[in-house]
Amino acid sequence: MTDNTGPVRVGLIGSGWIGRFHGESLARRIPETDLVAVADPAPGAAERVAGELGAGYGYTDAADLITDPEIEAVVIASPARFHTDLVVAAAQAGKAIFVEKPMALTIADADRAIGAAASAGLPLQVGFNRRFATGFAAARRIIDDGGIGTPQLLRSLTRDPGGFDPAAVRPGTIFLETLIHDFDTLRWLNPGASVVDVYAVADALVHPQWRDRGLLDTAVVTIRFDNGAIATAEANFSAAYGYDVRGEVFGSAGMVTAGDVRAGDMRHYHAGGVSSPTTRLNIDLFRDAYTQQLADFAANVRGERRPVPTGEDAREALAIALAAIESVRSGARVAIRKVTA
Amino acid sequence: MTDNTGPVRVGLIGSGWIGRFHGESLARRIPETDLVAVADPAPGAAERVAGELGAGYGYTDAADLITDPEIEAVVIASPARFHTDLVVAAAQAGKAIFVEKPMALTIADADRAIGAAASAGLPLQVGFNRRFATGFAAARRIIDDGGIGTPQLLRSLTRDPGGFDPAAVRPGTIFLETLIHDFDTLRWLNPGASVVDVYAVADALVHPQWRDRGLLDTAVVTIRFDNGAIATAEANFSAAYGYDVRGEVFGSAGMVTAGDVRAGDMRHYHAGGVSSPTTRLNIDLFRDAYTQQLADFAANVRGERRPVPTGEDAREALAIALAAIESVRSGARVAIRKVTA
Amino acid sequence: MTDNTGPVRVGLIGSGWIGRFHGESLARRIPETDLVAVADPAPGAAERVAGELGAGYGYTDAADLITDPEIEAVVIASPARFHTDLVVAAAQAGKAIFVEKPMALTIADADRAIGAAASAGLPLQVGFNRRFATGFAAARRIIDDGGIGTPQLLRSLTRDPGGFDPAAVRPGTIFLETLIHDFDTLRWLNPGASVVDVYAVADALVHPQWRDRGLLDTAVVTIRFDNGAIATAEANFSAAYGYDVRGEVFGSAGMVTAGDVRAGDMRHYHAGGVSSPTTRLNIDLFRDAYTQQLADFAANVRGERRPVPTGEDAREALAIALAAIESVRSGARVAIRKVTA
Amino acid sequence: MTDNTGPVRVGLIGSGWIGRFHGESLARRIPETDLVAVADPAPGAAERVAGELGAGYGYTDAADLITDPEIEAVVIASPARFHTDLVVAAAQAGKAIFVEKPMALTIADADRAIGAAASAGLPLQVGFNRRFATGFAAARRIIDDGGIGTPQLLRSLTRDPGGFDPAAVRPGTIFLETLIHDFDTLRWLNPGASVVDVYAVADALVHPQWRDRGLLDTAVVTIRFDNGAIATAEANFSAAYGYDVRGEVFGSAGMVTAGDVRAGDMRHYHAGGVSSPTTRLNIDLFRDAYTQQLADFAANVRGERRPVPTGEDAREALAIALAAIESVRSGARVAIRKVTA
Repeated sequence: MTDNTGPVRVGLIGSGWIGRFHGESLARRIPETDLVAVADPAPGAAERVAGELGAGYGYTDAADLITDPEIEAVVIASPARFHTDLVVAAAQAGKAIFVEKPMALTIADADRAIGAAASAGLPLQVGFNRRFATGFAAARRIIDDGGIGTPQLLRSLTRDPGGFDPAAVRPGTIFLETLIHDFDTLRWLNPGASVVDVYAVADALVHPQWRDRGLLDTAVVTIRFDNGAIATAEANFSAAYGYDVRGEVFGSAGMVTAGDVRAGDMRHYHAGGVSSPTTRLNIDLFRDAYTQQLADFAANVRGERRPVPTGEDAREALAIALAAIESVRSGARVAIRKVTA
Repeated sequence: MTDNTGPVRVGLIGSGWIGRFHGESLARRIPETDLVAVADPAPGAAERVAGELGAGYGYTDAADLITDPEIEAVVIASPARFHTDLVVAAAQAGKAIFVEKPMALTIADADRAIGAAASAGLPLQVGFNRRFATGFAAARRIIDDGGIGTPQLLRSLTRDPGGFDPAAVRPGTIFLETLIHDFDTLRWLNPGASVVDVYAVADALVHPQWRDRGLLDTAVVTIRFDNGAIATAEANFSAAYGYDVRGEVFGSAGMVTAGDVRAGDMRHYHAGGVSSPTTRLNIDLFRDAYTQQLADFAANVRGERRPVPTGEDAREALAIALAAIESVRSGARVAIRKVTA
Repeated sequence: MTDNTGPVRVGLIGSGWIGRFHGESLARRIPETDLVAVADPAPGAAERVAGELGAGYGYTDAADLITDPEIEAVVIASPARFHTDLVVAAAQAGKAIFVEKPMALTIADADRAIGAAASAGLPLQVGFNRRFATGFAAARRIIDDGGIGTPQLLRSLTRDPGGFDPAAVRPGTIFLETLIHDFDTLRWLNPGASVVDVYAVADALVHPQWRDRGLLDTAVVTIRFDNGAIATAEANFSAAYGYDVRGEVFGSAGMVTAGDVRAGDMRHYHAGGVSSPTTRLNIDLFRDAYTQQLADFAANVRGERRPVPTGEDAREALAIALAAIESVRSGARVAIRKVTA
Repeated sequence: MTDNTGPVRVGLIGSGWIGRFHGESLARRIPETDLVAVADPAPGAAERVAGELGAGYGYTDAADLITDPEIEAVVIASPARFHTDLVVAAAQAGKAIFVEKPMALTIADADRAIGAAASAGLPLQVGFNRRFATGFAAARRIIDDGGIGTPQLLRSLTRDPGGFDPAAVRPGTIFLETLIHDFDTLRWLNPGASVVDVYAVADALVHPQWRDRGLLDTAVVTIRFDNGAIATAEANFSAAYGYDVRGEVFGSAGMVTAGDVRAGDMRHYHAGGVSSPTTRLNIDLFRDAYTQQLADFAANVRGERRPVPTGEDAREALAIALAAIESVRSGARVAIRKVTA
């Protein structure tokens, strides 16, 4: 990182669905970044994506990208189970780090990732993109301005329209990879409060045949905060009507809501009633938010701000997810202070 | 009207679609009125409706109802061409008068109706029910409170879903019976201003085959007021999606809108998008407004308030309608002061 | 009940806030009922309300009303703790019964009420008015028509703007008198399913000083059904922005929502943004629903339909409320089959 | 234009408000374009903007930019009165042309611009950006799919929140520079129909003191099409609540609407009601549309599609604007076929 001017030179690790989208943002939508290289273990994938996006290099081994001296920052969009090791390796190589959620799958790994970045004095930002969505960010500003008083009841939900591939889902996926967004959102919309305990119920309602393998597709989590606020997080993997992400915070002086599955402002009035089209893809619903968070990361790399959301934010959201998994297993409320593994 | 306590004893003239609804309101929905008698020239109609609604008498001749000493007020819901004569007869018989729009079809008749009620010192109220609709009334209050500053641009529209019976439509119907609502609404939402001139275009777009008979089903009217405000009134007789009545007033400090064709607050999210049901009948859209205006009339009869909208309001709206008809004929702007016949 | 024609002759027990409103409905808004008498133990209250509403009799002792031979049906709107005894007494006196929620505060009392009405062969209807609200009823029709597939996630919430009088609140009030509406709504919007277990958290967030007295003002309840559906019920006693009651049912093929705190269709656009007024009173939000349920009751009394919601519905909702109270106490999930006291 | 691969090399003429925004789009937001040079007669302006946006050259004389051999396309965002000459010069220099509205201020100039581009065989696209707005484009697709039947009533409005600088406003500005958007929108949303005649009223309501100088700030235009449809276009220069652009098309089988002044999906519920923030700038309201139209232009330059909206579209919209100006002057309806100067 000898040169601190000009676009940030970024390497992308992982060229799947969201990795590819991040690559396009880095190469085309964000003037403050250049996409220098892409890494992906699938034969030919990295070279192909690098070529399409005008990046100079395609690596099959992420380690090669991480040690590439032309690269000053990495965006990690690999499968979740590799996230922590990649964060640590990138930190040791002196790269600024943006990592998709979840940063880690255990508290020990979360601590390892945080420690590596801290030791190296490098920016570490986590992909909780909803913080960058216009409506959610406006809601947070209202809260900060006192517009709802003290939060008392919160809700965050994620309903994915796409169904899911059972091969890609593991026990815990709905908590560790989906609801982890909602857990971060709920913490962020209740500023300063800490989670006390968690109760979760979950089931395989979309595909009951996979229940035996633990592939839960529907979940509701109740979270108590130390300021008394009670939050609900909710997820489902098969929303027929679109990609539905909403938040709601009710407080002593009012309420804010954010999120709307309707796509755009066209309304069609016809013999059957009034209709709106809906958004079907997360990269449509959060197009601007996904892009803005990487632009924000680039600014962080240039030292203009501290990176947010942080590794600590990822650790806190993970603790809630792990408590929820334990609660589903035990059927009981789980105190968050006990979550350490 | 010797007895000024207890419910107002009302006679209903006309038992068609809207007359029947008014009868139900008088008999059942408004504690402050009793429905004493019904008149309708169709054989058996008055007796049947009177029986169903618990009214004591059914007359085939409205004159008998008007001179019935038990009756202290009449609600006139006959075909429009009889309105003026019925108003005059009722006034001469000493009855308080509620008359459906249009009160008259010529300025001379309007003056005759106003004069008869004034001479007799009797309440005369006209059925511009939108003034009693919750949303429109709230809009007017915002205007009165200065919430939009000085009105500059206004819009009022009526789109009827039901299609229409060409036998019941005459040249002028869309202006004299439909848009007359919008003309009153526009005047009422621009308090204190007077109409300067009118330009109208109209056509037979729903049923082109009736154009030759002058049965216009689609119209747009531009109205200039002496405070500079410019208003648009719009009507169509065949809205596929429901009964659509909306108002909009834009002013120097803001805007108010009123009216929503959506029926209730249920929303259905499905694979095709998000849908709302719509309202199909004026007596559903304006159920409360139709009822409230008669409750208000009953209060007027008991002397608690002056009747509004007045015969003068009806005359002013009629003048706009007549100017619009002349404008369609001539293709030119018509100054409102010239409208006298 | 010798005469089965003409309006149903109703006696009203309790002339407080909601009793008074029911009295007005019976006397003025519902042609199918006559308000014959009012009972209230407060000195002079029954006579005053009876006088104002045109009812013939005012009793201080409800027993006198119940045995009044002119009365064929009672509407019970007394404080909740008297409901069961009044139901039983009315049943023994041969009166058809409409009772406000909660019908009973214990399962034993619920069984006693149900048994008394069943033994006497009398209609027994419970005041879960939301079933009669336009939006909620439309949502249920969509569900019945298969428009959302199988319910998987449900939500029902009640937020009361009025604050509350601690003298009128007892431990359990938020579950037994407020959330009991939501429990019924959730059961009704998940037709055919039974509740498996309940987890509840609650706190005194509006008035922390009353926490020691057990006066909980904020609660979230998670309910599992035997068809796998997971429901959340939520309540708070001090909503700054209005009377907010909403429902949401997400299923395998879509979603329905109902409820909107906005009052009417006026929108005000001004320098600060776009604003809507909100509804502040339950009798404004549910005006039509409150009235419609009594009109429906009158039809039930005349034998046209079986009364719904039934005493059994009230018992089921009560079981959820009692389980929620136990869950708050124990901090654990409570199986619904264990709720028997 | 020897090289037909790689990003289109664009020169920007005019670096004011909208020119600057277009420059950012060309340099940063659209991968398919490179911003090569900027021209602006203001001393230092072109060089400064070129520097900020990474363009290689800043010219004070647009003629130098137009003849720059490195440039293959120009984006003309100068003051309106220079548009036509710049189009002609660019066409003669062999550059593809994107020109902001209005392309010309007289029919003769419009013909001159169209002719120059046609003679040179060069793409000519006009900046009617609303065609690229999500909601408006969705509305057009519904119309194309038959979702509203035959258009019968149309509306398009523009209300600018910013007030205006009288030094920048000339008689005709509201028609030639603002409503020209609405005229194009109305034509585009009534596919295949031609305008028959125009009636317009306009006034100086925001700043009455400038009425004598002809600086009209409020206008309503009624347009008849040869398929019978009747359209209204409406504009005002001082909307207190935001940048409000809406369209509505009512047809024989339904209606579509587009446009919403509300900014994002956050809603704030508070003691005063429910509030939404609003959009205040055209470059916020149409951010994506402004960008998309230039991306579309780049594709046109690469020969992938014919440029739309065309010079002929600009000529048709201009004819409506000129007819409206004549109608305001004369107070009479103006047939569109007579508009030739």
